[in-house]
Amino acid sequence: MSFADHIRACNNYDRARVVPLIAGERRVGWLRRDNAAALARFPAVFAVEPERVQLVARGDVDAVSAAVDDVVEALVTENRVPKWRNETFDVMPSWGEAPLFRLDRGAVPFFGVRAYGVDLNGYRRDRGGLHLWVGRRAPDKRVAPNKLDNTVAGGIGNGYGVAATLAKEADEEAAIPASLIERAVPVGAITYLMENDIGIRDGVLFVYDLELPAEFVPTNRDGEIVDFQLMPALSVIERIRSTDDFKFDVNLVYLDFALRHGLIPVEDPEYLTVASGLHRPFD
Amino acid sequence: MSFADHIRACNNYDRARVVPLIAGERRVGWLRRDNAAALARFPAVFAVEPERVQLVARGDVDAVSAAVDDVVEALVTENRVPKWRNETFDVMPSWGEAPLFRLDRGAVPFFGVRAYGVDLNGYRRDRGGLHLWVGRRAPDKRVAPNKLDNTVAGGIGNGYGVAATLAKEADEEAAIPASLIERAVPVGAITYLMENDIGIRDGVLFVYDLELPAEFVPTNRDGEIVDFQLMPALSVIERIRSTDDFKFDVNLVYLDFALRHGLIPVEDPEYLTVASGLHRPFD
Repeated sequence: MSFADHIRACNNYDRARVVPLIAGERRVGWLRRDNAAALARFPAVFAVEPERVQLVARGDVDAVSAAVDDVVEALVTENRVPKWRNETFDVMPSWGEAPLFRLDRGAVPFFGVRAYGVDLNGYRRDRGGLHLWVGRRAPDKRVAPNKLDNTVAGGIGNGYGVAATLAKEADEEAAIPASLIERAVPVGAITYLMENDIGIRDGVLFVYDLELPAEFVPTNRDGEIVDFQLMPALSVIERIRSTDDFKFDVNLVYLDFALRHGLIPVEDPEYLTVASGLHRPFD
Repeated sequence: MSFADHIRACNNYDRARVVPLIAGERRVGWLRRDNAAALARFPAVFAVEPERVQLVARGDVDAVSAAVDDVVEALVTENRVPKWRNETFDVMPSWGEAPLFRLDRGAVPFFGVRAYGVDLNGYRRDRGGLHLWVGRRAPDKRVAPNKLDNTVAGGIGNGYGVAATLAKEADEEAAIPASLIERAVPVGAITYLMENDIGIRDGVLFVYDLELPAEFVPTNRDGEIVDFQLMPALSVIERIRSTDDFKFDVNLVYLDFALRHGLIPVEDPEYLTVASGLHRPFD
C-alpha cells in the first residue's frame, strides 16, 4: 500500500466507460454504459442515445422525482440498485443550484449523480501531539462495513444544508452537542470520481476540523459506529500508508488533515502525490 | 472578477496546443506547437516530430545541459526566451528524481518544464482576526511587476531543496531569521498549468504557514519587494475576489490559506470552485 494507492482507488473513473446523463442542457450524472443500456426500456423517462442519456420526463420536481423513482423501483427488482428508501439526495447540475429532482440515495451511484457529504476531523492537542477520534463503522453498514471512519461523516440529504447536516450527524453519530459543533472550522472539500460496483461515485466531502476538549468522549447513538478510539494522528497516517483499514474516501480526508497540519514532511516521496490528489477539479 | 477567474487564468492550458517533450521514455515538458517548431533547426539536440519532441542530446547531466543551453542562447537571440543567466532549474520527470539536465530559469516555460517554488504565508493573530504580511513586487520584476505578493516566495533553483530555498528566500526577501523560519509549517502545495506569452507554466508551489510575532516586521533585502503591508486576511480575500492586484498564482495561495483557516464560509457560492481548483492533478 501507499498513499497513492488510496488516491488512485478513489479516482479510478474512466471517461470512456461512461456517458453523460443530461437534464435540459446540463449534465447531472455519469452513467456507466451498462447502466445506460438498462434505462432503454423506460423511454418515457430516459432517452438513451449511443453517447448520452437524456432525461425526458417532464413536470415539476415532484413529478420528475416520481417518474425517476418508478425506474429506480424497477432497477431495485433487477438488483442493479440497493434502494435505501429512507433518504433522498437532491440532483442539481452544480452545488447551490435549484434541484431538478430527488433521487433515492441508493440509486445515486447508478446514475453517477454528484453526492455531497460532510466529514469532521475531531482532534485533540495532547502533549504527544495531535490525536484523532477515529470511529469504526458497524458491520451491517452497506458501504465499507467494519472500516475505520472519521469522527463524524454523513451524506447531505434532500432539504439539508451543509451546516445543518454536520450538526445533525455530529449529534447522531458522536453525541457532539450544538455548543461544541458550532466551533467546527470549515477547511475545504475533498473531491473524487470513482467507479464502484453500482456505477460512478462523484464524491464531494465538505471537511471540518474540530478541536475537542480533553474531557469529551464521542458516543454513537445511531448504531452506525460501533466504537471510537483516540489515535495519534501520526499513527493514523502510517496506518493509512500501509493498510486498507480505513473507508476508501476517509483515507483522503485524513491525508488532507495531515497535510494541512504539517504532519507529512515535504521530503516524503509522496508529498506532491498527496498535495495534488485530493481535490479533483470538476469537469 | 471572481475567485473562479483567477483559478481559470492559472489553468488556461489546452492540451491541443502543445506536444510533449520526451527525454528517454519520460515526459519532462510541454512544448507549445510554435515552440516545438522553433526547435527543428537544432536536430543534434531535439528531434521534432508532429506530435512530440524527443531530447536526443547524449551524455551526462553537464553535457546535456550544455547542449540545451546552446539552443537556449539561440532562442534568446530570437527573443523567444528571456534568459536569466543567474539561476538554473533542475529538469526531472517528477519531483525527487535525479535531474536529467539543468535549464536556465528564463527558458523553463518555453519548454513547459515543471517549475517548483516555495510560498510562505506570514500571518499574525490579532484581536481583529488573522492578518497577513503582504509584499509588493518591485517595478523591475520580469514577471508580474508591481503586483502584490506573499510574505516570501521563490523558485527552487538547481541544487536547493525545499526547506533550504524557503530559508534562503525568507532571509533575502523578508529578513526572517533562521530561528523563526524553522517554525514554518508545510501545509501542502498549489499546482496549476498555465499558458503564458513564452510557453507553458507548469507550476508547483510548496506552501508554508508561519505565525509571526507581533514585534516582527518583514524587511526586504534583495530589492525584489518594495514594501510590506499587514492586511486583514478577510480584506486580502475580498480584494482577490474583486481585483487583479495580486500576482496570478499568489491569488491561489491566499485562497488556499483562506480555505484552510475557515475564512471562506461554506455558503459562499464559489466555495467548491475554490476547494476543487487549487490542486490540479499531475497528468
